[in-house]
Amino acid sequence: MHIRVINPTITREWEADTCQAYRAVADPETEISVVSLNWGTASIECHRDHALVIPEILNKAMAAEREGVQAVIVDCMGDPGVAAARELLRIPVVGPAEASMHLAAMLGHRFSVLTVLEARIPMMEDQVASYGLEEKLASVRAFDIPVLELERDPHATLQRVIQVSEQAVRQDGAQVIVPGCTGLAGYAGRIQAGLAERGCEVPVLDPPSVAVKTAEALVLLGLAHSKRTYPSPEAKPYRWPGVKLYGE
Amino acid sequence: MHIRVINPTITREWEADTCQAYRAVADPETEISVVSLNWGTASIECHRDHALVIPEILNKAMAAEREGVQAVIVDCMGDPGVAAARELLRIPVVGPAEASMHLAAMLGHRFSVLTVLEARIPMMEDQVASYGLEEKLASVRAFDIPVLELERDPHATLQRVIQVSEQAVRQDGAQVIVPGCTGLAGYAGRIQAGLAERGCEVPVLDPPSVAVKTAEALVLLGLAHSKRTYPSPEAKPYRWPGVKLYGE
Amino acid sequence: MHIRVINPTITREWEADTCQAYRAVADPETEISVVSLNWGTASIECHRDHALVIPEILNKAMAAEREGVQAVIVDCMGDPGVAAARELLRIPVVGPAEASMHLAAMLGHRFSVLTVLEARIPMMEDQVASYGLEEKLASVRAFDIPVLELERDPHATLQRVIQVSEQAVRQDGAQVIVPGCTGLAGYAGRIQAGLAERGCEVPVLDPPSVAVKTAEALVLLGLAHSKRTYPSPEAKPYRWPGVKLYGE
Amino acid sequence: MHIRVINPTITREWEADTCQAYRAVADPETEISVVSLNWGTASIECHRDHALVIPEILNKAMAAEREGVQAVIVDCMGDPGVAAARELLRIPVVGPAEASMHLAAMLGHRFSVLTVLEARIPMMEDQVASYGLEEKLASVRAFDIPVLELERDPHATLQRVIQVSEQAVRQDGAQVIVPGCTGLAGYAGRIQAGLAERGCEVPVLDPPSVAVKTAEALVLLGLAHSKRTYPSPEAKPYRWPGVKLYGE
Amino acid sequence: MHIRVINPTITREWEADTCQAYRAVADPETEISVVSLNWGTASIECHRDHALVIPEILNKAMAAEREGVQAVIVDCMGDPGVAAARELLRIPVVGPAEASMHLAAMLGHRFSVLTVLEARIPMMEDQVASYGLEEKLASVRAFDIPVLELERDPHATLQRVIQVSEQAVRQDGAQVIVPGCTGLAGYAGRIQAGLAERGCEVPVLDPPSVAVKTAEALVLLGLAHSKRTYPSPEAKPYRWPGVKLYGE
Amino acid sequence: MHIRVINPTITREWEADTCQAYRAVADPETEISVVSLNWGTASIECHRDHALVIPEILNKAMAAEREGVQAVIVDCMGDPGVAAARELLRIPVVGPAEASMHLAAMLGHRFSVLTVLEARIPMMEDQVASYGLEEKLASVRAFDIPVLELERDPHATLQRVIQVSEQAVRQDGAQVIVPGCTGLAGYAGRIQAGLAERGCEVPVLDPPSVAVKTAEALVLLGLAHSKRTYPSPEAKPYRWPGVKLYGE
Repeated sequence: MHIRVINPTITREWEADTCQAYRAVADPETEISVVSLNWGTASIECHRDHALVIPEILNKAMAAEREGVQAVIVDCMGDPGVAAARELLRIPVVGPAEASMHLAAMLGHRFSVLTVLEARIPMMEDQVASYGLEEKLASVRAFDIPVLELERDPHATLQRVIQVSEQAVRQDGAQVIVPGCTGLAGYAGRIQAGLAERGCEVPVLDPPSVAVKTAEALVLLGLAHSKRTYPSPEAKPYRWPGVKLYGE
Repeated sequence: MHIRVINPTITREWEADTCQAYRAVADPETEISVVSLNWGTASIECHRDHALVIPEILNKAMAAEREGVQAVIVDCMGDPGVAAARELLRIPVVGPAEASMHLAAMLGHRFSVLTVLEARIPMMEDQVASYGLEEKLASVRAFDIPVLELERDPHATLQRVIQVSEQAVRQDGAQVIVPGCTGLAGYAGRIQAGLAERGCEVPVLDPPSVAVKTAEALVLLGLAHSKRTYPSPEAKPYRWPGVKLYGE
Repeated sequence: MHIRVINPTITREWEADTCQAYRAVADPETEISVVSLNWGTASIECHRDHALVIPEILNKAMAAEREGVQAVIVDCMGDPGVAAARELLRIPVVGPAEASMHLAAMLGHRFSVLTVLEARIPMMEDQVASYGLEEKLASVRAFDIPVLELERDPHATLQRVIQVSEQAVRQDGAQVIVPGCTGLAGYAGRIQAGLAERGCEVPVLDPPSVAVKTAEALVLLGLAHSKRTYPSPEAKPYRWPGVKLYGE
Repeated sequence: MHIRVINPTITREWEADTCQAYRAVADPETEISVVSLNWGTASIECHRDHALVIPEILNKAMAAEREGVQAVIVDCMGDPGVAAARELLRIPVVGPAEASMHLAAMLGHRFSVLTVLEARIPMMEDQVASYGLEEKLASVRAFDIPVLELERDPHATLQRVIQVSEQAVRQDGAQVIVPGCTGLAGYAGRIQAGLAERGCEVPVLDPPSVAVKTAEALVLLGLAHSKRTYPSPEAKPYRWPGVKLYGE
Repeated sequence: MHIRVINPTITREWEADTCQAYRAVADPETEISVVSLNWGTASIECHRDHALVIPEILNKAMAAEREGVQAVIVDCMGDPGVAAARELLRIPVVGPAEASMHLAAMLGHRFSVLTVLEARIPMMEDQVASYGLEEKLASVRAFDIPVLELERDPHATLQRVIQVSEQAVRQDGAQVIVPGCTGLAGYAGRIQAGLAERGCEVPVLDPPSVAVKTAEALVLLGLAHSKRTYPSPEAKPYRWPGVKLYGE
Repeated sequence: MHIRVINPTITREWEADTCQAYRAVADPETEISVVSLNWGTASIECHRDHALVIPEILNKAMAAEREGVQAVIVDCMGDPGVAAARELLRIPVVGPAEASMHLAAMLGHRFSVLTVLEARIPMMEDQVASYGLEEKLASVRAFDIPVLELERDPHATLQRVIQVSEQAVRQDGAQVIVPGCTGLAGYAGRIQAGLAERGCEVPVLDPPSVAVKTAEALVLLGLAHSKRTYPSPEAKPYRWPGVKLYGE
């Protein structure tokens, strides 16, 4: 099985880490390949960023299907372009946020999502609601570190994320934690351990890991998104700057 | 007051009709100007189309603010790009769907939305939910005519829309009707009259009209969207094909 | 256009200020006339007060329609008598609470309502729910000044309202503020400015202003409430003390 | 124990039947007294009717408390004046709709309410929602006989109500039936029997019976409504035609 | 009338107190008999305990119906076995939690439930939701005393429960209090008095009392649960250790 | 990895088929073992059946953990005993209903569940709600074949299930189908093909397959249910007929 992970930014430096994060939990026989965008933004933190990365995500997703991969994952907790890509593709398109929030909903009464910036809370609350999971949401809490600074001081990032997670558990009633940024890939185990030390024994999910297992399961079970929900669009006239879109 | 209406497609032929539709109900002192997209699709019927029109909608919206207009309306019932444009702009950005659904919610117990194709029903239901108006929704019904064919036989379109509206009233309990495609601009009065003839006395909204009155009211009252919900994004590195984005 | 504002109390002293508040934002060609009640209470703060003012509100509303005005506004954030008046009238009947809460829902993720007394919180929460806007409500907060004392010390009132608004923003996640008493008419701009000084940049609505623009828009668009939701009641036997009701 | 039933109309002819309906299930030691209104309408079918009966319901309710009765029931499925009366009284005020809908919610998965006229469906749906019972509601169905004609042909009324109940069971999934008009007092047993004959074994409640047992239970348990929800209003200036209100 | 109260534990020592609690408010002509379980656990605090007591609760419930009692109450705020017993019985089966939460919903805007241990909060929240009463719930709060230690120091228990109730009122907006453990039977009056002393005038329910009045009312009105919701199961092969089940 | 599948009935004949169904999609290195109950019922169709199988499911689940298996699946779409077993175990306990409904929610706008008997619809609707997935539910439809007769005429069963699925798609707006009985294990592909022939292209899940992939993923990712939601119960006195419980 070959799964294509789309790094939905132009920050090509993330590719190696991303690939490693996904490979770490993939089945030994699963091939993971990562591509970044030619056009788009350096990171994704708002509606504007979504707008600028989605067209090229669609290009990369369609290319993946043409190349014969079995599933596509968009490596961002905003799940940008996932709905549009499902219209264009028949192979599974997995969003780490959607997959990990549904798993979180299975593991406990309510979950909290940790997001990078306070300014993203409304957007993330809307996203949870769009998956039909409002009733399972304890809270969205921000740890207030921008995406591009997450790796500047990993220890400080970890401590801050653990602290905010503990607030989610103790004050909001969170019983499962979902880190809301794929820039935190690989931190889940340490967050869970840190919380346990503070007396908060709750599962902490690693969304990229959940995404890859979900993608593998869908491929293995011969399942994909419903074409009634994501009907294949008709070809229609369009104009696009400089490049041809969609493999024509 | 100057309101910029963005025709969020590359179908420049619609501009004259669009302009007329908005001017018809605007205050005599309100200037209405319409622009179409340089890049994008010919019409908007799915997530893919949204993806391809939003970047250029943002360009046009930012240009509008730079030119000193007081408000922007995106002339499509999918409200494409409205959230992202609100991040980038301080002047009001009005979506005809959001504005007319909230007005519909004030006028009656439940409203129904008429959408072009059955395939768009899930997307429209999600859109209504995203405005927090699920409880006020009687149904989304499709009249099954693609956007680009609405004007082929206006009489048949009207009859079909009246018929589906009557089903919404009698079978789903709709008490207000919201035509879910700005391609039906100007039909509202005739739909309402047709329904009245069939014994269904319900208001039928004309979303472009509602949008222009909402935009005028916001400007006059000195109001715009909350920057806590739509915070202005930081500048960040990006790459885009052929053109410079955002007026640089 | 002629809009009749009903001051739904017997406190005739409010008429001049009320008239000014509505005229301030009305179209120059809109005539605003204000009437107070012959029978009723001095202010409106509970279910009992609603009971005592609504019969006469209906009288005044029916008289307004007979006199040929184009729309009626009931100047109270409890929207007393609005539903009943809609049964009796064909011209639009606008409640400032309903109109401003729907506008607030369009401007941001969640809004908070400021109400006079803690004792009114359950009633206001029920009112928001009755408009189908629960999901958009951040909180109802009381600033604990009775209606009849709002104007005793306007500066103290303003400071108290700003303080409570800031709590709504910072603790409850409010992103838009709706003052929940028309006694605060005209304060909105100063509340918004006061919040901005404290680092809370959120829109603050002036419900009378929103009501008048909504009424003007409905008249201009030829719209009114659905008679399916508010069917005209049959004449039926009644008995009423001392006066004839309803213009007979 | 003495329970005062307020017939919230001026139709004094209903008093004897009303009294009998309540006495039939009351404890032998419970005294039931019925009063009708001096001022108000002949029946209650819309918001306008509510407006015209509530002031006098409050008078009668306050008089009842002054006279030393232990509980008040307002004999109408619109529960008119119940909230306002709870502000004014410390003894329990029971609405047959609220009491029977909560009991219905305990007896089965979902209940349907039968209302007199299609025009009342929105109002009844709002009422169910205001009790927090939306999730337990299968449907509101109208049997389309005005209140004042219910007794013209009792057999036809019964047959029609059974037929509509069966539709509620088979088409809407109702598992309990709540007749939504106290004019159907005493029919419940026959509706239930009629449904059973048609293969629909569901409980059918008699709201006046439920109201009287609820009132008796509250009195016996020393309970009444929360004064935090229904705080006692301050005295305040008022003016009222011809009569003094509230026992002054 | 004869009502059978099932003490759903093997702790026979509770029988006398239980019997007294139910008799205290029962009609003088109502006979109350209490039985404990032969098989099961000493108290009920989790899903595992439910699993171990329900089979024998069903045995006792079926025996009660065979013996000709008119109603069954399961004396635990988890309402264990109530749904299953309703399948097997035609006489009313009353759960104190369901009955008292619906009554609480009638008495005020929102209610809080006091539960024994923080660990039970998710379970109790789910239970409230299963009754369709989420919207009426202010909070579930734990007073952190295990069931079997409630009676060790009744004064300390009372003080702790009052303190937590006050938090529910002041911080969560509770307007009615429901003690969430039948081990607190008889405390309601003192909790209510304690709260009143602290300025929180709210009703506090005694769930066993509510259960017995509900059972009496159902019997008197000839009502029971809907067999459409709780259909009688077909006989089917089973195997059970050592004993015959269900009276065979 | 070793996964224990509990056939939660005494019908040992199902073991071979069950084992095959789970092995078919399990990883080649995953060992699947199936155990049936010593005590319980022959099939599971109601609350009573749940009551009689759960105690022994807990025995089998605890035995599985003691034996060192890595995860437990309870092979029934009622997910009986899953919550209680999670209290007792630290290894993942997977319910096929919960796992497949969450996956269905990811694959399309709304899903329908097919259940055996109309009498089970309320129970299944409650179950979906308990997972927080009400908003994603299109409908629960019954195909009216008892569990024990599913295999009598597999072709007729298949045709009936396809027919009911088509109704769910066309009439209820289902966009994903979840067979609500593990007795339909292995049918999913044929139902999906049958629906496709009738023009309904929707994914049809095989709940046992989804359960096994979910269990494998949890084990691989080192995740299990939150012990804050499912806290380990204290040991406490109990009495049980004939056997010792829980491995003592």
